[in-house]
Amino acid sequence: MNFHSIYHKPSSNYCFAINKQTLVLRLRVSNKDIFSSIKVIYEGKYVFYSKQKEAIMNKKYEDQLFSYYEIKMCLEDVRFAYVFLLSIDDKNYYYSEDGITETYDFKNAHYNCFQYAYINDIDIHKEISWLKNSVFYEIFVDRFNQGDFTKKSDYINTKWGDKILSNSFAGGDLQGIIDKLDYLSNLGINTLYLTPIFSSVSNHKYDINNYYKIDSEFGDEKVFKELVNKAHAKNMYIVIDGVFNHTSDLLEEFIDVTQKGRDSKYFDWFIIKGEYVDKKKVNYETFSNCYYHPKFNTSNLEVEKFLINIGKYYVSEYDIDGWRLDVSDEASHVFWRNFRREIKSIKSECFLVGENWHDANPYLGGDQFDSIMNYSFTKVLIDYFAYEKYDAYDASCRLNNLLVRNTIQVNNMMLNLIDSHDTDRFYTLVKKDKDKLLSSLALTFMYKGVPCLYYGIEIPLEGGYDPDNRKCFPWDKLDENSPYFQKLIEIIKLKKINELEDSDIFIYSIDNLLYVERYTEKIKYKLLINQSKKSSLFKDRGLNIISHKTNNFQIEANGFIIIKEEL
Amino acid sequence: MNFHSIYHKPSSNYCFAINKQTLVLRLRVSNKDIFSSIKVIYEGKYVFYSKQKEAIMNKKYEDQLFSYYEIKMCLEDVRFAYVFLLSIDDKNYYYSEDGITETYDFKNAHYNCFQYAYINDIDIHKEISWLKNSVFYEIFVDRFNQGDFTKKSDYINTKWGDKILSNSFAGGDLQGIIDKLDYLSNLGINTLYLTPIFSSVSNHKYDINNYYKIDSEFGDEKVFKELVNKAHAKNMYIVIDGVFNHTSDLLEEFIDVTQKGRDSKYFDWFIIKGEYVDKKKVNYETFSNCYYHPKFNTSNLEVEKFLINIGKYYVSEYDIDGWRLDVSDEASHVFWRNFRREIKSIKSECFLVGENWHDANPYLGGDQFDSIMNYSFTKVLIDYFAYEKYDAYDASCRLNNLLVRNTIQVNNMMLNLIDSHDTDRFYTLVKKDKDKLLSSLALTFMYKGVPCLYYGIEIPLEGGYDPDNRKCFPWDKLDENSPYFQKLIEIIKLKKINELEDSDIFIYSIDNLLYVERYTEKIKYKLLINQSKKSSLFKDRGLNIISHKTNNFQIEANGFIIIKEEL
Repeated sequence: MNFHSIYHKPSSNYCFAINKQTLVLRLRVSNKDIFSSIKVIYEGKYVFYSKQKEAIMNKKYEDQLFSYYEIKMCLEDVRFAYVFLLSIDDKNYYYSEDGITETYDFKNAHYNCFQYAYINDIDIHKEISWLKNSVFYEIFVDRFNQGDFTKKSDYINTKWGDKILSNSFAGGDLQGIIDKLDYLSNLGINTLYLTPIFSSVSNHKYDINNYYKIDSEFGDEKVFKELVNKAHAKNMYIVIDGVFNHTSDLLEEFIDVTQKGRDSKYFDWFIIKGEYVDKKKVNYETFSNCYYHPKFNTSNLEVEKFLINIGKYYVSEYDIDGWRLDVSDEASHVFWRNFRREIKSIKSECFLVGENWHDANPYLGGDQFDSIMNYSFTKVLIDYFAYEKYDAYDASCRLNNLLVRNTIQVNNMMLNLIDSHDTDRFYTLVKKDKDKLLSSLALTFMYKGVPCLYYGIEIPLEGGYDPDNRKCFPWDKLDENSPYFQKLIEIIKLKKINELEDSDIFIYSIDNLLYVERYTEKIKYKLLINQSKKSSLFKDRGLNIISHKTNNFQIEANGFIIIKEEL
Repeated sequence: MNFHSIYHKPSSNYCFAINKQTLVLRLRVSNKDIFSSIKVIYEGKYVFYSKQKEAIMNKKYEDQLFSYYEIKMCLEDVRFAYVFLLSIDDKNYYYSEDGITETYDFKNAHYNCFQYAYINDIDIHKEISWLKNSVFYEIFVDRFNQGDFTKKSDYINTKWGDKILSNSFAGGDLQGIIDKLDYLSNLGINTLYLTPIFSSVSNHKYDINNYYKIDSEFGDEKVFKELVNKAHAKNMYIVIDGVFNHTSDLLEEFIDVTQKGRDSKYFDWFIIKGEYVDKKKVNYETFSNCYYHPKFNTSNLEVEKFLINIGKYYVSEYDIDGWRLDVSDEASHVFWRNFRREIKSIKSECFLVGENWHDANPYLGGDQFDSIMNYSFTKVLIDYFAYEKYDAYDASCRLNNLLVRNTIQVNNMMLNLIDSHDTDRFYTLVKKDKDKLLSSLALTFMYKGVPCLYYGIEIPLEGGYDPDNRKCFPWDKLDENSPYFQKLIEIIKLKKINELEDSDIFIYSIDNLLYVERYTEKIKYKLLINQSKKSSLFKDRGLNIISHKTNNFQIEANGFIIIKEEL
């Protein structure tokens, strides 16, 4: 046994409660070791010293180095004590807080067993029910669609469809989104994630100068309310972008500090070195070293209250369904914990999704965000489909690895995106290979979590890095009858299949075919992706399996197939 | 290289900020692998893609399986991006969020490097300065000393010094502690940790029926205030026991629920199955399945407020210096986070120490407790000195392993106890071997953290498990001139040595001698413990080293020696 491979940690992604009756345990071992069995030895915390039960754990995930065993324990007691028993090569090893030992002294277990001391309801990360069959659609507002042609339009400096520059204003607005709600709903979208809509001098509006004002280029408070209400009437949800880490140098409070220096009552709202603001030297903390992005001092209780009030205002006044939290990894954990508690107290199903590009496990314990924009997933798609750095085995390993990073609840709420306003467009990355794009979409929709489509993927739109990835939606080029569009619709419909909602996932590879299975006790949906050039490889195996199917469900394209099997 | 052994995790005990300029990084590898170097490749987050710096990491801790490398990074930027570079057998391996790879694509590092996104001051766990040279002394109040002989004393049912039963009341009180402040101060104690002092019908008073009343057996509000003030006047600190997880069935609010069932406005203060309280069936959540220990529903905002107000009251009204938090692992994380924030807002140096017997890492991120009662440390002492289950190497491994569990700040504040009112007395566990007891004390005082002595160890007092470990202090047997007592004094004085305050630690073993070094750039204090029966082994090595010393500092006993070396 590779002793160094063994890993477990209570109250983490390796041990977490789903509800007061259900605890999930994971154990990591080497994927090279072949165990005759891995068991969890357990009981209620108060009796564990004198009697124990046992349960067999099964292998659930595998990556390049490790296998991860998982078990869902149905509890009789909310206090849970346990150790692991690993049997290999006719030997038994106990694994407890004190490490790996050949014997275990249950009488003194109160010193060194693993434990979940007590499942307190308030600590449990609860899944948001409406995310179960949600499909997100990210809209860069200035570029999606112009609906209001009566507005003051002298700010528009580019013709719809012309080449986009970093300072282009194209005229897209909230009315334009309202006008497309039916289109989006028919596409299968049920949640719109809008880039910032508040008062700002930029086209992207990530530098907000008034959080209580809808930017006049996009509309006003009335039209935003209409958008939310009309969306809700169509069973659609609205998630908006909250820039709470930093602000604009044109925010009233920052201007006051600029004018008065330390005498301003807002001086401690920001983090300034010296007595006065010096925009040229940028002597204050910023986002991305930009003088016009001063960072809030979220450790200041007044700032915390100011920002949380904004967060609550749009939930209570407009009934929005979620906040996407910009640069969320640079604001403090303390701030996000309080933000969450207050937002959830008025709308428990309000979705809080952080913009963390990295492993965000420390933010995802149920106390801060519900999930993040899953750019690590994006990276797997890029390395597998675009760069062809990964074969199917590598891809399966990475996809499994990402699932182990977090709890099941977080995985179910992860916002899985293939591109966004902050990346090259995926269609461009795969060199305009529609088969690859569809395969990556199939994978995204079969993976655990919530798919997020970036506007224009239905064309599909090309685009390199910013600003090229923020082109105007070419409505004249939309071909709803194209085979690509029709296949996209088919894939999106996967999210409407109730059987898949609470299904489990199993990812593996055989002979460079990538398999993603979603299954319940009764059914299995199986995705096979052939990213290899040898198409025979796909046909040999893919068609072979299909011939066994007993039903009519099938989605197929040049590169992947999804079939259903009754169990 | 043992790939399976490599471990690191940002924003954890493997990567944490000590202040806005200092980040500590740790990396775990196999202790069998011999590296030509291990480096951290790093830069500010915004420039990491284009240029990097590097720094060499050094081995700091070792246990049975792993070596742990550590480095303190002095930062220029609060945003820190990094990967590791491991060189071994003429090969180089990068270690990033994506695992171990032979190359690393810095241009795309924003997807998968490790990072500390931004050091927010409010997230930093700050050390409590007065703990630096603190020595704690735990007092079980009913058994320490009776000072008030005018009080109503018909509750006393045992003669001081007679055999203690579980229902004995012996008469110890707060005046008795005041009367011994000089004695304790002379002993070198500077912090008293008192078991509960609030109104309760038991002798231990862990079932509190009125949190705002000092138990009349122990004194009253006036005498408690006098105790705190007199202690403070002697530069001593007072930490009291907070039982916030559960309460007494005689608490007014629980009585109300007992009488009115669901109609009581306090019904949701507890977790009750059914409409009425049934004490026989114990149909409500409790501590330890005791009907008289109903558990608070700390998820209830009213309860949270009730308990936090108690916590704040004794800080603001009595100026206590800390709360020892009983059964802290069974109350919710949410509760403790709010508790901490409110307590620290009125006294930032108020010490919050949890009673968690297990690895409490999820409670020790700086958001909940400052540290815990370190029973895992106690267990090492028991296994090494009492059960002789460990040799010096095993002990060094366990001691190192415990240091890696948590941040440096937490280690510095850990309450390291060799016994308590909840364990057998250590002197009894080592079969009344005073040499072993002194060696274990020497180790406790040389280890990172705050030593906590249980009253009576200065006799030393014998005692098995509860109630035998709660005997009356035999003041008539105290011999301040005994060699044992004098050696104890010498050991306690280690905490007065300023050079040791911020010194680093290094623990290892050679030939079954256990070495604990505390060092700065200038000096080194070295503890050698010979727990082996071959005393020659100790003399050969111990005396050999001593002959090189250039100063007069030395503490020696039969089983250990502490010497100082100038560097």
